[in-house]
Amino acid sequence: MRASQFLLSTLKETPADAEVISHQLMLRAGLIRRLASGLYNWTPTGIRVLRKVEHVVRDEMTKAGAMEMLMPVVQPAELWEESGRWEQYGPELARLKDRHGREFCLGPTHEEVITDFVRNEISSYKQLPLSLFQIQTKFRDEIRPRFGVMRSREFIMKDAYSFHATQESLQQTYDTMYQAYSNIFTRLGLNFRAVLADTGSIGGSASHEFHVLAGSGEDDIAFSDSSDFAANVELAEALAVGERSAAAAAMKQIATPGARSVDDVATQLICQPAEIAKTLIVQGTHDEAGQYGFVALVLRGDHTLNELKAEKHPAVHSPLTFATEEEVLSATGANPGSVGPVALTLTVLCDRSADLMSNFYCGANENDHHLASVNWDRDVTATEVVDLRNVEAGDPSPCGLGNIVIKRGIEVGHIFQLGDKYSKALNCSVLNENGKDQVVTMGCYGIGITRVVASAIEQNYDDNGIKWPASLAPFQVAIAPINYHKSEKVAAACDELYQQLTAAGIEVLLMDAEKARLGGILADIELVGITHRVVIGDRGLDAGEIEYRHRHAAENEALSADNLLSELLARVNG
Amino acid sequence: MRASQFLLSTLKETPADAEVISHQLMLRAGLIRRLASGLYNWTPTGIRVLRKVEHVVRDEMTKAGAMEMLMPVVQPAELWEESGRWEQYGPELARLKDRHGREFCLGPTHEEVITDFVRNEISSYKQLPLSLFQIQTKFRDEIRPRFGVMRSREFIMKDAYSFHATQESLQQTYDTMYQAYSNIFTRLGLNFRAVLADTGSIGGSASHEFHVLAGSGEDDIAFSDSSDFAANVELAEALAVGERSAAAAAMKQIATPGARSVDDVATQLICQPAEIAKTLIVQGTHDEAGQYGFVALVLRGDHTLNELKAEKHPAVHSPLTFATEEEVLSATGANPGSVGPVALTLTVLCDRSADLMSNFYCGANENDHHLASVNWDRDVTATEVVDLRNVEAGDPSPCGLGNIVIKRGIEVGHIFQLGDKYSKALNCSVLNENGKDQVVTMGCYGIGITRVVASAIEQNYDDNGIKWPASLAPFQVAIAPINYHKSEKVAAACDELYQQLTAAGIEVLLMDAEKARLGGILADIELVGITHRVVIGDRGLDAGEIEYRHRHAAENEALSADNLLSELLARVNG
Repeated sequence: MRASQFLLSTLKETPADAEVISHQLMLRAGLIRRLASGLYNWTPTGIRVLRKVEHVVRDEMTKAGAMEMLMPVVQPAELWEESGRWEQYGPELARLKDRHGREFCLGPTHEEVITDFVRNEISSYKQLPLSLFQIQTKFRDEIRPRFGVMRSREFIMKDAYSFHATQESLQQTYDTMYQAYSNIFTRLGLNFRAVLADTGSIGGSASHEFHVLAGSGEDDIAFSDSSDFAANVELAEALAVGERSAAAAAMKQIATPGARSVDDVATQLICQPAEIAKTLIVQGTHDEAGQYGFVALVLRGDHTLNELKAEKHPAVHSPLTFATEEEVLSATGANPGSVGPVALTLTVLCDRSADLMSNFYCGANENDHHLASVNWDRDVTATEVVDLRNVEAGDPSPCGLGNIVIKRGIEVGHIFQLGDKYSKALNCSVLNENGKDQVVTMGCYGIGITRVVASAIEQNYDDNGIKWPASLAPFQVAIAPINYHKSEKVAAACDELYQQLTAAGIEVLLMDAEKARLGGILADIELVGITHRVVIGDRGLDAGEIEYRHRHAAENEALSADNLLSELLARVNG
Repeated sequence: MRASQFLLSTLKETPADAEVISHQLMLRAGLIRRLASGLYNWTPTGIRVLRKVEHVVRDEMTKAGAMEMLMPVVQPAELWEESGRWEQYGPELARLKDRHGREFCLGPTHEEVITDFVRNEISSYKQLPLSLFQIQTKFRDEIRPRFGVMRSREFIMKDAYSFHATQESLQQTYDTMYQAYSNIFTRLGLNFRAVLADTGSIGGSASHEFHVLAGSGEDDIAFSDSSDFAANVELAEALAVGERSAAAAAMKQIATPGARSVDDVATQLICQPAEIAKTLIVQGTHDEAGQYGFVALVLRGDHTLNELKAEKHPAVHSPLTFATEEEVLSATGANPGSVGPVALTLTVLCDRSADLMSNFYCGANENDHHLASVNWDRDVTATEVVDLRNVEAGDPSPCGLGNIVIKRGIEVGHIFQLGDKYSKALNCSVLNENGKDQVVTMGCYGIGITRVVASAIEQNYDDNGIKWPASLAPFQVAIAPINYHKSEKVAAACDELYQQLTAAGIEVLLMDAEKARLGGILADIELVGITHRVVIGDRGLDAGEIEYRHRHAAENEALSADNLLSELLARVNG
């Protein structure tokens, strides 16, 4: 492509409303332009990157045995009523009526449509397993669209769905998809982790999120420094380290006037937070009439409660609900700041690490008092020892290998064993080996195509612009001429190289715009993130040396003008 | 692809609700499945065809110098208010509100969005001309969606827009697009015509529709049998043939009791309709207060009035409005069946062919009476001779070469010189050579991608199924085994050929499903329309002869088993 015939649309200034680096650079490099809140045009430069992501995703999905198809953006309400999601889905679901008053939505996802399609096409277990995918426009009416295409309202997603007669078959396809996703993000040149995820409210039995690691990510990912174990911090198992020391002095009560927090107590008693057991009072399981008691959660003072873990305990109400000040006072005899497990008449759930404490401090269940030199078994017994805390950097990895590292991640993919949630609701069944109707089991597998582009930038940039992985750069080679419109020799050399590279199937951008100066040309090339660039001027041609630079390199290299094509091809293909 | 791992989904029965052949065959061959009225899923077979259309369109648009981009489906109402179309567009425009109550529509077309994009990106005439295109999902809430994807509500369109500083530049790009469209439909193997179209209500100066010729088309296309002239029947100029004969007997009045129509008169007077001049009374131009007189339109009795031509005359009210019976009586002194031009005090517009009549019959402006032996000039003078009639098969072509043939066409593409309709409304301007603001001139260029697939079928089918042009077949080669699961020799030969063809980059479907019988296999191959097929069985392998058939051929051919791959490749690539 010649820049004189291409709409490059770079910006010198960083737009004021772009908060994150990918949004800033996508605007500055001219990849996207805002149409309205959460709605973006993809420019000629931007769509080149987008298509590269699509290409790799399509290729790996096909290799994984999934068949491409295409479902409508607009979906009839009836199907969503069948699944129950017409009621359940909140205002994120954009709804509209057609001219006859019939209700439709813009698909935020396609479980209902694909399940309807498959129930009409498939009748026998012999036609299973079946995997289908599409790359298609979706819409979610985000309450607060932001970060450019990172959280937009309209976006492109690859969504795949698989159908099975048995759980074993689902597991097999799930494993294949896991591998396909790993292949995709590896081919795209991204630093990513497959993260064990919560199956949460959607139901289903297994789920992994694929996260691109980047400082600006919204999720904390805990992973081992020595294995491929990775989990959302909320889900990672926290192991206890070390052993309980022997009990020493007898327990005694001490005054802690006005101390409300662990830090207050540590300051007053001149001890470490890790020497204090903190006790949190939460609602216990509700009975059918909505009546409930309370449960005490005990953690080491320097640890943080993992609410997800707590609310999964059968004695604890879900969603986790903290007792009010009045409730704490009535249940323990003290204000929240002075509560402790000793002589408490509630169920006491003790975190694994808190259980290894000895000679520790805790609230005395009397206002403005704590107990010192408390020991488990001797002074107090927990109802149960469980995992209640968030994992922390440096913890031993629950996989048994290495220690936990925590980094931020951007979720770009999600694979999920759906089970029969949709197939049951929509009665998607097949005749099994015994000639009986059997509801099928499903998996679903998504990749946010537009989001991948933004997350690749979050992970790969510098002060000058985007440092695309080579697989994603909108052009592979940029030719930067010096005086293209003044020197015939320069123009001839640039044109020849341009034609040779193009003939070799390389995507080239020849910066031939009139009045362009080298400084501006190089700034544009770096901003847009073209992987390989050469500078061609009279001096270099005369000297037989052409200045080359890889976008990821700190220094220029000199290439022989005589072997320029082959030297460049070696770098592009190598 | 192995059929055992592919969702072919063919149907034996023709679905009852499919009216046209393309809809029937797209359902039977398993290309599409209905989701709701006017909404279709594209199956794995269907999307293979769709992607081939997209590929050719993308390739030719890029060669024509247009840059691909991507605009959102959901568009803000504000832009449509700027262009005035928020009010003008009827219920075909699907409108919705977001969670904050802001209004949006689903884009039926993207003039507003692209004009907004370009006004923000372009500032100088030096950046023009600029051509941009996208291949994208559109939505039009058709009052009566039908014929499958031929008139669906959601569909895929390639829409391109060009921006210019001068009309000459627009004309140049228009000509380039005309050629690109011709290349596209030629490469797709379709019999098509570029048809001069009405620029009608959209405004603008030039427009061509591209029609695929097929009996089921909705439009009548008039084209020359000896040149590339083609026009919508409504727009084709009608020439008069022959010369006026000399006047003979004197004009006389005769009784035609009860005759109301040309046919009634011809029966009573024992003459041909071509010997009768028929006179139609229509409203003349309205003044500002809505007052109007009447105009008489005179045509040969066997010709039909072209309303579009009539209402374009400055003396005639647009839209064309016929006078009521009472108005005719008051303006002419007779009922409509007895009206004629002689001694009429109205403006008389005479069609070119009616002007060549002599010694003709016409109404006498007295109820139940006609005049015989009427002659122009001698007995009556027309105010003006103009083109008022529809062209007919056999007419001389207005291009001067050959005669008119009329066939039905399906509109699959439209190119249009928009002028400044949108650029003016949205103030899309550039600085011109003199440093002054100048509104740009625009062209737009659409192709209905999904519709092309249906129209290709309307033009190419037989009793057994679809006869795709080779460029569109979902698979190039089908291998039909006899006893794949029983004969190891057959399985080995099929597998080898499958691998060889696949390695050569050919799209193959190996019909390896269990329990498939040859009759059913061949029926599926013909229904789906795979271009080349071979039948591989023990007998043929033993005899060294493999049965081959091209989907468009009436007979089988025998290919040498020893040279099977090369013989097949020669046919596929030849």
